[in-house]
Amino acid sequence: MANVLTPQGEDFPRWYQDVVAKAELAENGPAKGSQVIRPTGFALWERMVDEMDDRIKETGTENASFPLLIPESYFQREAAHVEGFAPELWMVTHGGGKELEEKLAIRPTSETIIGEYMAKWVNSYRDLPLLLNQWCNVMRYELRTRLFLRSSEFLWQEGHTVHESYEDAHAFTLRILHDVYADFMENVLALPVLRGIKTEAERFAGALNTFGAEVLMRDGKVLQMGTSHELGQNFAKAFDIRFQGSDGKQQLGWTTSWGTSTRMVGGLIMGHGDDAGLRVPPRLAPVQVLVMVVKDSDEVQSAAKKVYDELKGDGLRVKLDHRGDVAFGRRAVDAELKGYPVRIEIGPRDLKNGEATVVSRIEGTKQTIPLGMLAEAVAAALEAAQMKLWDEALEFRETHTTDAATVDEAIEAAQHGYARLPWDACGVEGEKRAAGSAVTVRVL
Amino acid sequence: MANVLTPQGEDFPRWYQDVVAKAELAENGPAKGSQVIRPTGFALWERMVDEMDDRIKETGTENASFPLLIPESYFQREAAHVEGFAPELWMVTHGGGKELEEKLAIRPTSETIIGEYMAKWVNSYRDLPLLLNQWCNVMRYELRTRLFLRSSEFLWQEGHTVHESYEDAHAFTLRILHDVYADFMENVLALPVLRGIKTEAERFAGALNTFGAEVLMRDGKVLQMGTSHELGQNFAKAFDIRFQGSDGKQQLGWTTSWGTSTRMVGGLIMGHGDDAGLRVPPRLAPVQVLVMVVKDSDEVQSAAKKVYDELKGDGLRVKLDHRGDVAFGRRAVDAELKGYPVRIEIGPRDLKNGEATVVSRIEGTKQTIPLGMLAEAVAAALEAAQMKLWDEALEFRETHTTDAATVDEAIEAAQHGYARLPWDACGVEGEKRAAGSAVTVRVL
Ligand SMILES: [Zn+2]
Ligand SMILES: [Zn+2]
Repeated sequence: MANVLTPQGEDFPRWYQDVVAKAELAENGPAKGSQVIRPTGFALWERMVDEMDDRIKETGTENASFPLLIPESYFQREAAHVEGFAPELWMVTHGGGKELEEKLAIRPTSETIIGEYMAKWVNSYRDLPLLLNQWCNVMRYELRTRLFLRSSEFLWQEGHTVHESYEDAHAFTLRILHDVYADFMENVLALPVLRGIKTEAERFAGALNTFGAEVLMRDGKVLQMGTSHELGQNFAKAFDIRFQGSDGKQQLGWTTSWGTSTRMVGGLIMGHGDDAGLRVPPRLAPVQVLVMVVKDSDEVQSAAKKVYDELKGDGLRVKLDHRGDVAFGRRAVDAELKGYPVRIEIGPRDLKNGEATVVSRIEGTKQTIPLGMLAEAVAAALEAAQMKLWDEALEFRETHTTDAATVDEAIEAAQHGYARLPWDACGVEGEKRAAGSAVTVRVL
Repeated sequence: MANVLTPQGEDFPRWYQDVVAKAELAENGPAKGSQVIRPTGFALWERMVDEMDDRIKETGTENASFPLLIPESYFQREAAHVEGFAPELWMVTHGGGKELEEKLAIRPTSETIIGEYMAKWVNSYRDLPLLLNQWCNVMRYELRTRLFLRSSEFLWQEGHTVHESYEDAHAFTLRILHDVYADFMENVLALPVLRGIKTEAERFAGALNTFGAEVLMRDGKVLQMGTSHELGQNFAKAFDIRFQGSDGKQQLGWTTSWGTSTRMVGGLIMGHGDDAGLRVPPRLAPVQVLVMVVKDSDEVQSAAKKVYDELKGDGLRVKLDHRGDVAFGRRAVDAELKGYPVRIEIGPRDLKNGEATVVSRIEGTKQTIPLGMLAEAVAAALEAAQMKLWDEALEFRETHTTDAATVDEAIEAAQHGYARLPWDACGVEGEKRAAGSAVTVRVL
C-alpha cells in the first residue's frame, strides 16, 4: 500500500495531522481555535463518555447542568483563579441587540458558578458530600492550537464536590484519579498511566494540589490526560460554602474539581497509532468489527449481512461495509486508517469454501476461518488485540523511562520519554531550567 | 398531607413553578434567562437523551460536534434566517483580552455553520444522504423566561441532513417526526402527539415547511415538543451545498433540520403532573422504584438492601432511601413530589410477616406483598402505571378537543384544549385574529 500518512519516524506532528484529516476525525472551525468533530472522531468521544460516565456514577456523583455564561464578577472572588483564567476568557458583551449591564464570560471551567450554587444547597453536614458532574463545552482563548489536543473550545466533564473535612476531600480526589481516570485509561484505552502530584508551577489556578494522570505518547512525549484538584477551602471561602457540622458549629466546606476532555481522543491517537493510522482498543472501539464485502454478488451480500446480524446479536459493535461497487483496496486502507480492531472480509472464493478472512489490525494477522467459527475467532482476536496494545504501551514506557541523577541528565532523557529524577536533585530551580528546554516536571 | 404545592386548579403556572422548585428540578442562573438543571431534573433529560439517541441512530444518523460560536457573516447568507434570528443573538466580541476582528454569535441553532461544512463533505450523490445530529447547548435572547419551557440557554439535539431529492428530504422530515419524535413521546413519555404542518406564521426562519409534534398539557394549553423542518434548497443555495448527480450533472442538495430540547422536561411535568407533584412514566423514569426504609433497624436496613439489590439485578432502575433517621412522612412527600412510579416501603411490622408495602404513585394504590413476590408485583405495577398515564392523557385530549365551525368558536374552545377548525374557515386572517386572543394555529 502506498503511504497515505507521513511516517511517524519522519515527522510525528505531521503524522498526527494526517491521521486526523484522513481518518475524518476532525477539522478546524471558523472561529480561532475552534474545531468540528466529525462522526468518526465523535464516536470515539461518545464511547469515552459512556465508559467514564459509568465510573463517575459509581462514585455516587450525579450529573447536572450549569450555565455557559458566567458573570465577570464571579472570577474576581478567588484571586489565584482570576489571575490564571482572565487572559483566556471569551467575553459576551451583547444580547438581544443591546449591550449587557455586566459582561459575561464563556465558562473556561465552572468552579465559580457551581460554587455559587453549592453554597445555596449545602446547609448541614447531612447534605455532604455533595458530588456533582457536568458534561459540557468550555472555551479558553488559545494562540497555538492542535485538533483535540489544544483548542479554544473543547468538550469535557468537570466534577465538583464539597466535603466535610480535608481528609474526605483528599480521599475523593484520589478516588477519582485512580478509580475513574486511571482505571478507564488503563483498562479501556490500554494506556499505562503515571499518577502523581503536580508541582506548584503546573497546579490549577486556585488549587491546593493538583494530581495528574499522565500518559506517554509514541513520540516519547507525555500528555496530561486528566487532572484531579484538591481545592482546599479556597473556593469555599470565596463562595461562602458553609455548613452546620455534626457538632452544631458553622464550618467551611472542602471542595474538589476534576476533569477530562476531548484531548483524550488526541491521546488515544498518539498513544497507539502507527504508520497505517489509528489503532483503537476493542474495549473502546465504536466499531469493533467491520464486516466487508470483497466483491458485489447476491451470495456475498447475503452472507455478509448474516455475519453482521449474528455478531451484532452477540452484543458486539459491528459495522457493515456493503459497498461492493467501491474498490476493495481503497476501503481496506480506510479501515486501517480508522483503526477498526478486527475486520471480516467476505469474498466469493472464501465463501465457496464456507469460509471468510479475519484480519486483525492490531496483531497484523490474517486468518481463514470457517463461517461457523467466526464468532469465536472474532472474540479471541478482540481479546488478543486489547492485550497486545496494553503490552506494547507498557513495554514502550519501560524502554522510555530513564533514571537520572541530575537535571541535565533528566533534560537529555526527557527528549525520548520519561526521566525519573529525585525532587531533591531538581527543585524549583531545576524545574525552571528544564522548562527552558521545553521539559516539564510531570508529577512528583 | 399538607399541600406543598399550589393546586393546579388554583393557579397552574404557579403549580408548575412550585414543582420545579420543590422537586429540585431546576433554578434560575445568574445571566438573564439562564438555568441550572439540578440532578433530579437532569436525570430526566439524560433518560430522554438515551431514548431519543437510540431512535435517531436507528435512522442512520450519526452524531458530531460543531462549534459554539458562529461568525456573524454566516447568518447574513440566508435572508429569512437572519431576519428570524438576528434579534435573539448573544454576541461574543472579545477573546484573550482583545477585540475580535469579526463578531461571533453563540449558536441559536446551527443550520449556517453546519451548512458550511456539509458543502465541503458533499461532492457526489454517493455521499448522500448525509445525516448528522448534535447534542449541545444553544442560546437565544429571551425577555420572559420559564424554567425548561423558555430559557435563554437550553440543551437540545439538532439534526441536519442533505438529500438528493425533494422526495427524499420530505420523507426524512416525516420519518423523524413520526419514528423518532412521536414514537418517543407516545411510547416512552406516554403523551399523545398531534402531528402536522405549521402555518407560515409559525414556520422556522428559512424553512419551506415545518412539521410540529404538539402535546396537550393538563391546563388545556398546547406545547410544541419538537419540530422537523423541510428546508428545501434555501440553505443549500446559501452555503453552496452542491453535488454531482448520478446523471453526472451538478445539483443543489435538499436539506432538513429538526430539534427537540429540554423543553420536553417541562412538557413531561405539565403533561402528567398532579397536585402532589410529578408523575414520571416508568419507561422514562430514571428511578422506577424507590426502596424506602420506614424506620432504622438492622433487620430493616438489610432487608431493604436485599430488595434493592434484587430489583437492580433484574435490570430495573432502583434507588435506595436508607435514611432511617429522617422522618418517614417527609421522605414520602418528597418521593411523591419527584414522581417515582413505584415505591417499596419496608418497615419492622411488615417485615415480621415477611412482607413489604408497594405503593403506586400513578395508580394511587397501596398493597402488602410477600417479599418473595415483590419483583413480580413491581413489574406489574410499572406496566400498569405506564398504561394508566397513557390512557389518562388520551382521554384528557379527547375531552379537550372541540370541533369548531368558525374562528370565534375555535378561540372560545382553545381556552380549554384543542379546537379542530377547517383551514378554509380560518385562513391567514383568522390566524391573526386568533393570535390577538393568544390562540395559535398549531398544525394543519
Ligand atoms: Zn494511590
Ligand atoms: Zn404520516
